[in-house]
Amino acid sequence: MSFNLENIISIRDFSKNDVEYILKKAEKMEPIARSEKVCHEKDGKLLGVMFYEPSTRTRLSFETAMKRLGGDVIGFGQKQGTSVQKGEVLYDTAQIIAQYTDALVIRHDMEGAARFIADNVDVPVINAGDGAGQHPSQTLLDLYTIKRTRGNLNNLKIALVGDLKYGRTVHSLVYALAMFNIEMIFIAPEELQMPSEIINDLTKMNCKFTQKSTLLDNLDDIDVLYMTRIQKERFPDPKEYLKVKGQYTLKKSNIEGTDIILMHPLPRVDEIDFDVDSLDNAMYFKQAFYGVPVRMAILDSVIKK
Amino acid sequence: MSFNLENIISIRDFSKNDVEYILKKAEKMEPIARSEKVCHEKDGKLLGVMFYEPSTRTRLSFETAMKRLGGDVIGFGQKQGTSVQKGEVLYDTAQIIAQYTDALVIRHDMEGAARFIADNVDVPVINAGDGAGQHPSQTLLDLYTIKRTRGNLNNLKIALVGDLKYGRTVHSLVYALAMFNIEMIFIAPEELQMPSEIINDLTKMNCKFTQKSTLLDNLDDIDVLYMTRIQKERFPDPKEYLKVKGQYTLKKSNIEGTDIILMHPLPRVDEIDFDVDSLDNAMYFKQAFYGVPVRMAILDSVIKK
Amino acid sequence: MSFNLENIISIRDFSKNDVEYILKKAEKMEPIARSEKVCHEKDGKLLGVMFYEPSTRTRLSFETAMKRLGGDVIGFGQKQGTSVQKGEVLYDTAQIIAQYTDALVIRHDMEGAARFIADNVDVPVINAGDGAGQHPSQTLLDLYTIKRTRGNLNNLKIALVGDLKYGRTVHSLVYALAMFNIEMIFIAPEELQMPSEIINDLTKMNCKFTQKSTLLDNLDDIDVLYMTRIQKERFPDPKEYLKVKGQYTLKKSNIEGTDIILMHPLPRVDEIDFDVDSLDNAMYFKQAFYGVPVRMAILDSVIKK
Repeated sequence: MSFNLENIISIRDFSKNDVEYILKKAEKMEPIARSEKVCHEKDGKLLGVMFYEPSTRTRLSFETAMKRLGGDVIGFGQKQGTSVQKGEVLYDTAQIIAQYTDALVIRHDMEGAARFIADNVDVPVINAGDGAGQHPSQTLLDLYTIKRTRGNLNNLKIALVGDLKYGRTVHSLVYALAMFNIEMIFIAPEELQMPSEIINDLTKMNCKFTQKSTLLDNLDDIDVLYMTRIQKERFPDPKEYLKVKGQYTLKKSNIEGTDIILMHPLPRVDEIDFDVDSLDNAMYFKQAFYGVPVRMAILDSVIKK
Repeated sequence: MSFNLENIISIRDFSKNDVEYILKKAEKMEPIARSEKVCHEKDGKLLGVMFYEPSTRTRLSFETAMKRLGGDVIGFGQKQGTSVQKGEVLYDTAQIIAQYTDALVIRHDMEGAARFIADNVDVPVINAGDGAGQHPSQTLLDLYTIKRTRGNLNNLKIALVGDLKYGRTVHSLVYALAMFNIEMIFIAPEELQMPSEIINDLTKMNCKFTQKSTLLDNLDDIDVLYMTRIQKERFPDPKEYLKVKGQYTLKKSNIEGTDIILMHPLPRVDEIDFDVDSLDNAMYFKQAFYGVPVRMAILDSVIKK
Repeated sequence: MSFNLENIISIRDFSKNDVEYILKKAEKMEPIARSEKVCHEKDGKLLGVMFYEPSTRTRLSFETAMKRLGGDVIGFGQKQGTSVQKGEVLYDTAQIIAQYTDALVIRHDMEGAARFIADNVDVPVINAGDGAGQHPSQTLLDLYTIKRTRGNLNNLKIALVGDLKYGRTVHSLVYALAMFNIEMIFIAPEELQMPSEIINDLTKMNCKFTQKSTLLDNLDDIDVLYMTRIQKERFPDPKEYLKVKGQYTLKKSNIEGTDIILMHPLPRVDEIDFDVDSLDNAMYFKQAFYGVPVRMAILDSVIKK
């Protein structure tokens, strides 16, 4: 089994074999991620992080991953305090930080930013979210969470809920789910349904999927419930938002006693009640943890010895 | 001698034995804190720092402590650039960072925040200040400074000066001083005197203490002078502040030639003249240094192997 | 060969021997800076960074240098989130961070800030830019870039272009160039020419230099073209800026096919066209990389074992 990607830009660059390689390696990384084993594999190596948009989970879990591997990190978590304030363009800043480090992780509000940088620097580039575009390490940790929790990725049915129109997390995820023939149900208000070009792609790939506008019917035959945040700003009329909001809020009673795995890329605002956290179904904090071994696997695969 | 606390939330959770354990361990940590010895004890371990309020000393000395122990740090020093901006609550952010790390250090403006988090995560939590509440590592370094400078904590008389009403540093400190039967003098303007519930507690504990409103009488029989900052914002009328300010400003002539140890939790604004710095009495920068071995002792005690 | 400076404040404190010592040591550091070799020389050591002004290159390359040497870093990249917000003065903040670390790197908007701190703390201090004053590590990396690219520093002719009046980079650089008898041409609009006190110094030192106001005449006999940014804010009338701007913008055709080495301290805004980047002449990103081995050499020289 081998891994042939030099950069991690889009999940659509991955073969099924590439995905399985990362998931398998992540499993080996878990004891180090849990701090049960010490690793010096990346001793002396530096990861450059360039976050032009705020992030807690993604940035800190990449930093955690690199440090658990024995390496270290430089970079910035926001534009402030950097030369971006002096008018420096992304291209120049990336050229510089690439000179200092062994790999770059980039989050930028412009779609295509990470690919553009990857084409122009001499170190591997990892896309940590480019506007409405891709966020491949999130997709891999989502898949890993499902696999670790269910044992495998076969014969599954997953419901994706919330803002399916603008949410880059779900856009990346559906292509990976398609790769493993996982059946999908898209649950969203009409105005936030999955974009038609993705629906077309899935149709061409012969995927099994359905579209719904209500959350709570027929949850019984679902294996995984993947909730996402609905952002108020997406609605021109705040009243429209309030009407929709209640219908996409999950309560304890909705899944208590079922086998459904409840996931969420986080941050949540109020789409999952806090008392859901105590249920065994609630996997979202665990899911966040799995970001560490998955990102360790990614870093270990792209950073040269 | 053993240490039994899992979390460091309030000095009032400490037995006298717990305090002595930390003070003793801090002494062993000093050569490492001074960079005379290299330590790899916490190799591979990660400390999560979550600072919702600005800090230089506390945050950087925890980071220094963890790094001198051979470990590393992730987290944030301000809300900006994190998912707090997207509306994420403290509880969720803490759950996440707890998944990534081996211990958390939290500063938050809400009293009780650290205790609440400690009750809900799987790693040790250290309170680095919760609003007007507790700041136990500051108290331990204050005690350590006195002990290191005087040789022991017996038969001492300490004057606490400045804003005794709102200053969380002195609120924590008096309970620790009471533990060691240290005599206290509370010197503050009427409107900033020690809160009555603390006075009641000290009375019940049979502590020796007195209250005064002028700084400069009878300084001779005092062993330690502990100054704190008086914040202008505490006074409804700026004129009241200006009246009080002068009376609580320390000049070189006030303590030159005495044996009094002058302490301050810092930052100072103008309550200690700069030319005091050159006196042997001035211990506040040394006191800041002692924060490192004391926090090393704390981290070493709560982070599991 | 030995190095006798305790602090790195101004290039004018350096003897020619001190400069050559750093340039030689930087060459040995290169394989570590390139991540071809792992170094543990500064294991357990901490560098304190205090940046009161924004920076990407300088701060991150110092951090990179310290981490590549096996050490670690604490500090801040901007005032926000520190006690500076509570009114703490530079002196106090520096005293504290000096207590925690083995050396300080300071950038401050006040000329003389780094020297003042060096006189008052017990650890080595490195000036990373003090207002319109000095920035010695930039000068050393500029020299190193020329030496590495040309093989030596003999018989060279360099043109310094752009804002020569306010640019601290060029102010530091000319004194170092003078040390090596490098011939200089100062190319700037009248109002941004080299200050007369520097011109006087160079005259006293018997340096060969000329002053010009147009960029593109007689580029042929120049070995190094050192461009700097012209800041719009320097011109009272924006029209004056626009008039000047075009004349100091470098195009691909201006140097393609020549042996001229093109340098820039970065960030550039628009004084070098992006298509110049692909030319072999373009050394500015390499120059940024050379900041790492040069700063490694500096840190290794001033931080005690």
